[in-house]
Amino acid sequence: MCDVPLKSYAALQKSFSSDIGGAATRQAIGELYTACLQFLSTAQREPLRSLIAGKEYFAFRVGEKLSRPVNAALFAGDARQWKSFAAALRDNALDAFKPEDLTRIIYSVAISFCCYIDLTKSRDQKTPGTFFEYLISHLFAWKLRVNPTTRIQVLNLDMDTTLPTDFIFNLGKDRPKFHLPIKTSTRERVIQVWAHQRVLDGVFGTGRFLGVPVILAETKTDAVKREVIEICLPEQWRIYQMHIAQLKRIYYLDVPATYVKLNDVFPPINVKSFGHFFFEADTLSA
Amino acid sequence: MCDVPLKSYAALQKSFSSDIGGAATRQAIGELYTACLQFLSTAQREPLRSLIAGKEYFAFRVGEKLSRPVNAALFAGDARQWKSFAAALRDNALDAFKPEDLTRIIYSVAISFCCYIDLTKSRDQKTPGTFFEYLISHLFAWKLRVNPTTRIQVLNLDMDTTLPTDFIFNLGKDRPKFHLPIKTSTRERVIQVWAHQRVLDGVFGTGRFLGVPVILAETKTDAVKREVIEICLPEQWRIYQMHIAQLKRIYYLDVPATYVKLNDVFPPINVKSFGHFFFEADTLSA
Repeated sequence: MCDVPLKSYAALQKSFSSDIGGAATRQAIGELYTACLQFLSTAQREPLRSLIAGKEYFAFRVGEKLSRPVNAALFAGDARQWKSFAAALRDNALDAFKPEDLTRIIYSVAISFCCYIDLTKSRDQKTPGTFFEYLISHLFAWKLRVNPTTRIQVLNLDMDTTLPTDFIFNLGKDRPKFHLPIKTSTRERVIQVWAHQRVLDGVFGTGRFLGVPVILAETKTDAVKREVIEICLPEQWRIYQMHIAQLKRIYYLDVPATYVKLNDVFPPINVKSFGHFFFEADTLSA
Repeated sequence: MCDVPLKSYAALQKSFSSDIGGAATRQAIGELYTACLQFLSTAQREPLRSLIAGKEYFAFRVGEKLSRPVNAALFAGDARQWKSFAAALRDNALDAFKPEDLTRIIYSVAISFCCYIDLTKSRDQKTPGTFFEYLISHLFAWKLRVNPTTRIQVLNLDMDTTLPTDFIFNLGKDRPKFHLPIKTSTRERVIQVWAHQRVLDGVFGTGRFLGVPVILAETKTDAVKREVIEICLPEQWRIYQMHIAQLKRIYYLDVPATYVKLNDVFPPINVKSFGHFFFEADTLSA
């Protein structure tokens, strides 16, 4: 049974490579989620000591292995919720959901696979990161009705080269293009996100690409003390936003408490839970 | 004997924390180098197949463990050369050396410790990286006659915060300040170097900080085929240099062939072997 999620993951990779935003990819995500929940139902839940006000965390345990922290209020652990979400995507009928509902469902799918890998592999950060890219870029492609690219041509006087990028969604002439970095966490590497936005602004003109990173969480567990903290750099974010480039939104599945406050400083940085994207995507360029 | 370099390393950490550019730190580097050479003299040298034109590489082997690639033409493996270099630093008499001599000596010190760690630890990238910071920042501190800091205060209207930085050398009023990122290799993370330069330019004004990263090498070994390649992104560097910020020099100990050519494009990026720094540091702000 331990291998079922990996088989579902291989199926997801296949459908992702043929149609990122398509129904087959969504179906594969659902099957993988179900398989992960099945696996996690055999794991123990171990409470962690949360040092983050207002948030409770636990970890899954199998033998000696402990998963990354799971936000108790966000974790649904119920495949039926994903099914109704997937049906609503199919029918283009998300109005019955609130942003918080969507955030919880998507968080649960993402964290389930991450915990499955934590409990069955050693030091594997790459596979959870790639899965999270699949999940988020699928949802973006569904919403924006176009598949993304990860290279972009740069024509500049006597220069003609292609630049590798995060996911880029090109909605066509006179419409915004989206620059979508997808990370399970950022820490000090986050400056890359602003730097890539700066390159896009510089090469193609400011305002043509809306930078909207989507990040899973910034939590970290002290394995000995079983304490959960969030690693946040709000003052550095402000300096990056003022001096490198402007990101339009920063979406989180598990929004760090410290970053919520950046909505209230001036100039603000708009940090929101990812569920909001589905209701504001069409107006983000305004 | 296997532990002798680690003890020398602990001594280096201690003297570094009290005086980065001081004679005690230089002495500790020399003792560590001697201990590493002693250790490496018991290791086998295994030739690697170099796919880089004009460069030969070998690796040290102890049992099953293989070190990172070592540039055969740059590796001196002779502690006496370091001793004459250290004596010249003490006497402020570098004129007897050519830039290439200095590059070779400093490369040999750096790569010896890296290989020692490769052969005695598992997956430890951090210790070689930290040692390389010690080595290069010591030499900068000697040359510039001031110790560096790694935080800088940002006062900006109603904002007062400190920004963590790479090594910063403040030569005082009306003189340049140096921004010194030190990396054993960069790959796709290199965009961070330009982004940090951009932040310094934005916060303090363009031209106040000279960005001069020092990098060990960009080599990578295919462990199965025993082939050495260099991972280089010259087109991306050009875009970063045009659209993020301007780096003054990019110094390498083992200069990648591909990056040498960036001296000849327009606008050029000045990529040089690190030995040149000692002879041009005083004129870099011109």
